[in-house]
Formats: sequence, structure tokens, C-alpha cells
Amino acid sequence: MTLSIDINCDLGESFGTYIKGQDAKVMKYITSANIACGYHAGDHNIMYETVKMAVENNIAIGAHPGFQDIIGFGRRELQITPNEVYNLMLYQMGALQSFAQVLGGKLHHVKPHGALYNMAAKDENIAEAIVRAVCDMDAKLILYGLSGSILTRLGRQHGLQVAEEVFADRSYQKDGSLTPRSNPRALIQNDQEVAIRVIRMIREGKVLSLGGEDISIKADSVCIHGDAPTTLAFVKILHTYLEQEDIHIEAIASNKR
Amino acid sequence: MTLSIDINCDLGESFGTYIKGQDAKVMKYITSANIACGYHAGDHNIMYETVKMAVENNIAIGAHPGFQDIIGFGRRELQITPNEVYNLMLYQMGALQSFAQVLGGKLHHVKPHGALYNMAAKDENIAEAIVRAVCDMDAKLILYGLSGSILTRLGRQHGLQVAEEVFADRSYQKDGSLTPRSNPRALIQNDQEVAIRVIRMIREGKVLSLGGEDISIKADSVCIHGDAPTTLAFVKILHTYLEQEDIHIEAIASNKR
Amino acid sequence: MTLSIDINCDLGESFGTYIKGQDAKVMKYITSANIACGYHAGDHNIMYETVKMAVENNIAIGAHPGFQDIIGFGRRELQITPNEVYNLMLYQMGALQSFAQVLGGKLHHVKPHGALYNMAAKDENIAEAIVRAVCDMDAKLILYGLSGSILTRLGRQHGLQVAEEVFADRSYQKDGSLTPRSNPRALIQNDQEVAIRVIRMIREGKVLSLGGEDISIKADSVCIHGDAPTTLAFVKILHTYLEQEDIHIEAIASNKR
Amino acid sequence: MTLSIDINCDLGESFGTYIKGQDAKVMKYITSANIACGYHAGDHNIMYETVKMAVENNIAIGAHPGFQDIIGFGRRELQITPNEVYNLMLYQMGALQSFAQVLGGKLHHVKPHGALYNMAAKDENIAEAIVRAVCDMDAKLILYGLSGSILTRLGRQHGLQVAEEVFADRSYQKDGSLTPRSNPRALIQNDQEVAIRVIRMIREGKVLSLGGEDISIKADSVCIHGDAPTTLAFVKILHTYLEQEDIHIEAIASNKR
Repeated sequence: MTLSIDINCDLGESFGTYIKGQDAKVMKYITSANIACGYHAGDHNIMYETVKMAVENNIAIGAHPGFQDIIGFGRRELQITPNEVYNLMLYQMGALQSFAQVLGGKLHHVKPHGALYNMAAKDENIAEAIVRAVCDMDAKLILYGLSGSILTRLGRQHGLQVAEEVFADRSYQKDGSLTPRSNPRALIQNDQEVAIRVIRMIREGKVLSLGGEDISIKADSVCIHGDAPTTLAFVKILHTYLEQEDIHIEAIASNKR
Repeated sequence: MTLSIDINCDLGESFGTYIKGQDAKVMKYITSANIACGYHAGDHNIMYETVKMAVENNIAIGAHPGFQDIIGFGRRELQITPNEVYNLMLYQMGALQSFAQVLGGKLHHVKPHGALYNMAAKDENIAEAIVRAVCDMDAKLILYGLSGSILTRLGRQHGLQVAEEVFADRSYQKDGSLTPRSNPRALIQNDQEVAIRVIRMIREGKVLSLGGEDISIKADSVCIHGDAPTTLAFVKILHTYLEQEDIHIEAIASNKR
Repeated sequence: MTLSIDINCDLGESFGTYIKGQDAKVMKYITSANIACGYHAGDHNIMYETVKMAVENNIAIGAHPGFQDIIGFGRRELQITPNEVYNLMLYQMGALQSFAQVLGGKLHHVKPHGALYNMAAKDENIAEAIVRAVCDMDAKLILYGLSGSILTRLGRQHGLQVAEEVFADRSYQKDGSLTPRSNPRALIQNDQEVAIRVIRMIREGKVLSLGGEDISIKADSVCIHGDAPTTLAFVKILHTYLEQEDIHIEAIASNKR
Repeated sequence: MTLSIDINCDLGESFGTYIKGQDAKVMKYITSANIACGYHAGDHNIMYETVKMAVENNIAIGAHPGFQDIIGFGRRELQITPNEVYNLMLYQMGALQSFAQVLGGKLHHVKPHGALYNMAAKDENIAEAIVRAVCDMDAKLILYGLSGSILTRLGRQHGLQVAEEVFADRSYQKDGSLTPRSNPRALIQNDQEVAIRVIRMIREGKVLSLGGEDISIKADSVCIHGDAPTTLAFVKILHTYLEQEDIHIEAIASNKR
């Protein structure tokens, strides 16, 4: 059996005259783009340009909705009701959908951003609101969430196709959660080590936790970070390792279309 | 031949905890709602509630996109490129489209708001960007614009169904433009006089300009303002007059669906 | 010894074309205004008008800084660092200070708003950041905080004059905290009952908690809510009761100027 | 007589997690900083850091107020009343003033940003509102404006000390206005040529206009752009030229303190 993996990256995170990331370059090495929808980053102009590039590069287009918090980049947890989460999901998915449509693309997936992603991984009510929004808007969309989280579990229960997402350069806790960024060992710096960890997650469904124990982890998609200066170097190394291991790099095929 | 007229009103203009208008009441007397999309007014929660009410009241749902300027309520003209107008139209139409879809409704029309509406009435490049956005997004949508304006002319040229919109309580200049609000005679205060003017626009296609000359005007839809305390009283009078004259009050039927 | 009490109210909470409250009327019955500074409500135009009215009515002017969250009206708790709290305090106090200065007024006090107020009542790091901002900006300002809270305790420890604030129409828990608004018994609706509770807080330093036990409470200032339609009726009743009891209604005098 | 010149630069233009400019490096080569105040760029955290650096580097601190338009970076002209301009000036100057104060600095000047700067150069009502705001807030502040513009003329008439500002790398029209950026010859690319033009403006009060005629120009301060990658190289060349010419580089001394 051939193994395959999706490489996703958050794109379109510039805002007005502010540039973030190196989208045009990263675009060459990924299979799925999570495109900011104007709430935590991105704006209508950036969205047009980013979707256009994704279509031209034949990358799967995903909505990347977040909290309405440009100044905090959507990374700050916020008191919010599930109903408001439902509504902000719809708003942002709809906004991105327009650009996909006029540019000859198609929404392929949805991945919540930042604090919303983290809250959805552990808070059942938030997760349920997200799942409901995706189901109501377009039940054929693939829902990306933290591998093994409440979000992906609920998505699956409600009949959505989900993508269990792993993070290449982040260390994991024993319970499968990501080590918080405040911990100095949250990030794994060595590119080779990272690539080897990714391979093992795909091949064996295992990763060594920070505490030194193997934990089970399912990897449908691996997330790389587009805004680091070192990203391009790393993603080339990752490609090399994956090719050596005969792991095919491709977007996740919808099982509903 | 039976005459008919559409009565439209801008709705969903509340924002966060700020209430504007009396949507639930006005809803009973109109046939088309232009719903704010979060840029100049409205937010994802208000949009949900407003679309829901519109569906329940069987009102035609329109997107009402404006400039990204809550503090100025989208009424301030702004240096903007046609490309950005195209993008902000797509963004806002898409966002509203989501709510229509999950609530069992359907986008029926688009009407630009405030300064964008005024700029589109006289600036060919802005008008063209709006028309292009509507054509690309959904060419079956009806485009509302100032009666006799560049916007409706261009819309028609590009194959869109357009609604020539008149304003019940505003006086007109000789050239068919609205008297600016800075002029003390911009608004016509007497409800009976307003109703009679509306009837004449519908029956004869004429209105008396501020200078005292008759001008030609086409009235597919008449706009009433939802945020004035006197709106409800006026709209009831308008209904009475229209019924006396056997003018049917109904939304504009799409000729494309 | 003559007893006295300050009556404070949050004012200037309109935004752009959105009106909130009935500031011009409430102004007649209060001694201190907490004026929104453009982050959770208010804008530069509203601030000008509100400070002008406060000066004309001889009301003590207070800055009312909150989270940068117009859409949530500053009521949503947010992950935030103490350093950012320090900075947002300085920014908003400075902005208001300008208007006080050009209009012949003077900053008299500072009261954090909404979620920031609540977080400062119980979180030592947030409270400390607020106290530090006030000390650094102008140590003669009076700091308003929830009576008996960490904020007023820390303010006092750092040498600030503080005002222990009580809420006329809110019920209290046994530990002196306000009953959350989600509890149906959070608000006390009967105006006479409210007035009598206020008198007792001032005279005896006691209030009956929701659980039926007397708790100690210090009342330097009583907060009324300006945006309820019933506010004016209530505040007149409160005035009558206070006058009957010979409790003088006046702003808190600075002990540092 | 010793000639001297002030070199100013717009700083603090980052926003949230978005970085713009290379403030820490540019800071070494300038004498005055125009610091964004959170409306078109900057935020409370950035303002704190930028003022801190300016104090440490002994740079004159200026407020750089602009339109409330982060997404357009304050560069888009906007319909606005003089009263609103007055208020937005006060708000932003006050906000920055706080940071100067707590960090041991002092406001030295004010320079409007972007579209506000351009409108103030040619629109008497806008210029007058700015002048009035500076006079009312602190009449000792130095007002920076386009050399020879309505803004500096009005400022002088109202008793303010003004700084006639020239742009090193921009070409001028016959009437003394800047060539619009839409013109391909708006920018002068050759660093030596730019330095020589600056010297001549200072020494002779002349500059060659785009049309090839000499025009008169007064240069109290020369503006360099901090966000171009080539800025550092250029400003070093400028320093060399000025030193060769014995032109002293220093902030403008207030004649009122």
C-alpha cells in the first residue's frame, strides 16, 4: 500500500500594506492552503491574490477562519458563545467561497485558526458549533483539526470527513496535546529530526512525547509554518525525506464528491 | 396592465450591542431587505438574525455591501481602486450568502450602500467594478441602483437584471440626482406629499424636481428608511395610497431563474 | 459627621452614528462620569462632546478604559498580558486627557471597564498593571474599583487614592463579589429596595448577600447604569432617599491636589 | 553661520504581529521620529517600544496622527469634517503623550500622516483644524508640514513654530507640490543625486522641479523613509555629504521652551 501525506500551510496572512509570510514561494511545496478570511489576518484584496495563486498552483483551498482580532492575530482566547462561533465560521467561509468561485477554484476544507483552533480541540461546545457550521454550509468540506482532538472526533461523529493534523516542528505532551509555546521545548529546531518525526508519525502512527514516551498519533496532514525564514529550507528537506520513504505528497481526496 | 412596485429598506444595521432601526416592525411592510454585511454596519450575529427574520417574513434578501467604515457608517467617500471595490463586493456578498443558505433563503439582489452607492451612480470605473463582481459571483442577482444612474445603465449593458430605485422622501435635482443632504430641502417631510410623488413616479414616470421642472424617472423599487422614528407611520400611509391606486406591492421577480 | 456619596455613571458609550445611553439627561443626577475612550465604546467625536457636557455640568471626569473590542462592548474576557494592560491603560487615559485639557476640564479618576474591571478585581497581575499605569501617568488620579477587590487593595498599597465602588442594583455574593449576570437574581428590580440597600451600605457598611447573610461593604461611590430606560426614574428616587437621610451627594475630593 | 538640518523619519509603523520598518537601525541616523499613534499604524504596545527607543537614542519625539484606517495605512483621502480632524488629532496626540511622559520623554513635534498630510497641504479647513488642535493641546509643539504648504503657513499665522519639510527622494512639481507617486518619475533613485539635491535645498533654498525649472524651497527638516530596504545605505551617504558640507545634523530646537 502506498502511503501519502498532505502538507498544509497557513497562507494569505498579510493585511493591508503589511506583508507576512512568503506565500508565492511556499506555495510550490505544499498541497493545501489554509487561507485567512479577514478576521485575524488577510483582507479582501489579499484573499483575492492568495486564492488566485492557489488555483494557479493547483493547491487545495481551505478557509482558515479565526477570531475577529487582527491586532492579536487571532491567537488570544476570548469569552465567546457557541452561537457566535457558528456565525463567525459562516461569515468567513462564505467570504472566502466567493473568491474561490470567481477564480475558478473550489473550497476543499476548513481549518479554524489560532485560539479558535485550540479552544475547539478541548471545548466540546466550541467544537460542536464549528462542526455544525461546516455541516450546514457545505457538508462535503473536509474539517482539519488537531490530531486526536475533540474537534476531529465530533466532526467524524456528525458525518464530516476530517483530517487529523500533526505539527512537524512542535513537541507533544503525553496526552497528545501540543506543548504550549511558553515552554522552551515547544519547538523542535533540528530540521532532520523534524523530518524523521514526521515520517514516523505517518509510517507508524507514533511520536515521542516530551516526557519520553511514545504516543499514538494519526497524521492525515502535516502543518508547516509559512512565516519563518527557515521554512523553505525545511520544507525542501521534508520533501526529500518523504520521497526517499516513498510517501506520496498530495492533498486529501474528498470521499464525498 | 397591473402596476406593481417593490418597497425596499436597509436592514440589519445594528452592530454588536448597538441597536439601529426597528427591523422586526419594518419587515411587515416591505418586500425587499438590503442587509448590511459587516463592513459599514451589521456583524455576523446581526446578519444571522436579520436573514432569519427576512426568511420568516418572506422578504427578498439582498446584500448591502459598503465601505469598511463602521465609525462613518459607510457614508464617507474614500479614495479606492476599482479592483478593491470588486474585492469588497465579493467578500460581503459571499459572507451574506452563507447565512441565506443555512437559513433556507436565497440571495435575490445586491444594492451598494452609502458612499459606495453614490460613487457608483456617477463614477464609471466604480460602477463597472460592482457590475463585474455581481456578474462573476452570480449573474442571476438583481442589481439595485439609483434610477437613471451609471450603475444601472452599466448593469443592464452587462446583461444584469437591474432595479431602478427611487427615494420616497428625497427631492431630486434637474439632472435626476438626489439633492444632497446638506441642502435643507433635501428631505420631503409631508407623508401625503411623499406618497403622491411615489404614485406619480410609478404611474407616469415623472417627478417634480427641486427647480420646479418635471423630470423622467423610472421606479422599479422605492426605498424607505428604517431608522427614522416616523418610518412606520409613513409606510402605512404609503401602503394605503398604493392600494387605492391598485398598485401591487411585491418584490421584483427575477427574469433569470 | 455628615455622610456623603459619589454617584458615578458610564457615559460617552455611543459610537459613530450609533447612540447609546441618555447622557445629557443622566448628567444632571450624577457627580462623576466614567467616559469611554474609544476602545470598547466611544470615539474621538463622542469623547469631545461628552467631556464638554461633563465640564458644563461640573461633573468629575474619569477615564473609562476597556479592551479594544467595540463589537463585544469590552465585556468579553480576553487572554492578555499585564504589559499590554499597562499600555492600553496609558493609551486611553492619554487620549481622554487631551479632551479634558482643551475643554477646560481635568482628569479626576480612572475606572477600568467591563471585562477588564472584572479581571482586575480578582487577578493580581492585571490589577497591578492598572495600578502601575495610573501611578506612572498621574498619581493624583483616584482609582475606582469594585469595593473590597484586589484592585482597590493594590491601588491603596501603591499609594493611590481609591474609591470603593458599589453597584446599586446588583446583588452580592457572600464573598463580596457581584452575582454574575447569568443568574436571574443578579439584578434587583425594585427601585425603593435598591435605594434602601444603598443607604445601608453608606450608613452601616453592610449589605445583605444573596444567601441571606450580611456582608461588610465600603461605599465611596455608587454606580448607576445610564443605558437602561428606567435609569432616570431610579436616580430621582435615589436622590430623594439620600436627601431624606441627609447624605450629601458629591464627587470624591482628591486628597492629593 | 553654521547651517543645520533635522532628519526625520516615520517610526512605530508596525501593528500587532506585523512588522514594518527597521526602527532600531534607522534610529541611529535620524534626529526626529514621527511615531504612529494607532490609527493608521502602530498600537499601544508598539508605541511604548518606539517611544522607549527614541528616548534611549535621544531622538526628538513627534506624534504622527493619521486617519483611522489601518488597512489603507492612512494613505486614502476621505471625506471628513474639520471638526473630526480636530478631534482625531487630539485623541492621537494625547495617546502618544502618555507614553512620552511615563518613559521620561517629551512631545517635541506633530506631523500629520499620509492622506491627512496631503489634504492639510492644500485644504485650508483641514489645515486650520490641525493647527487649532496643536495650539489648544500644546502651543509649544513644533508643527511639521510640507514646505511651502497651506499647513505651515497657517501654523505660522497662528503662532506655532513650524518646520518646513522636504522629501529627499521625491521629485517636485513647478508649484512646489510633490509629484504624485502614480508618476514614474515621482521617486529619485540615485542616492548621490538625492544627497546633492538635499544639500542644495539647505544651502540655496532651491530645487530643480520635474519640468526643469528651479523652484524655491525651504528645508528645516528632511524626511527619509524607514521602510525601504535601501534606507540605511542612503542615510549613511546623506550623513557623509552633510558632514562634508559642514551642515550640522540636529533636531529643531524649540524657540518656545
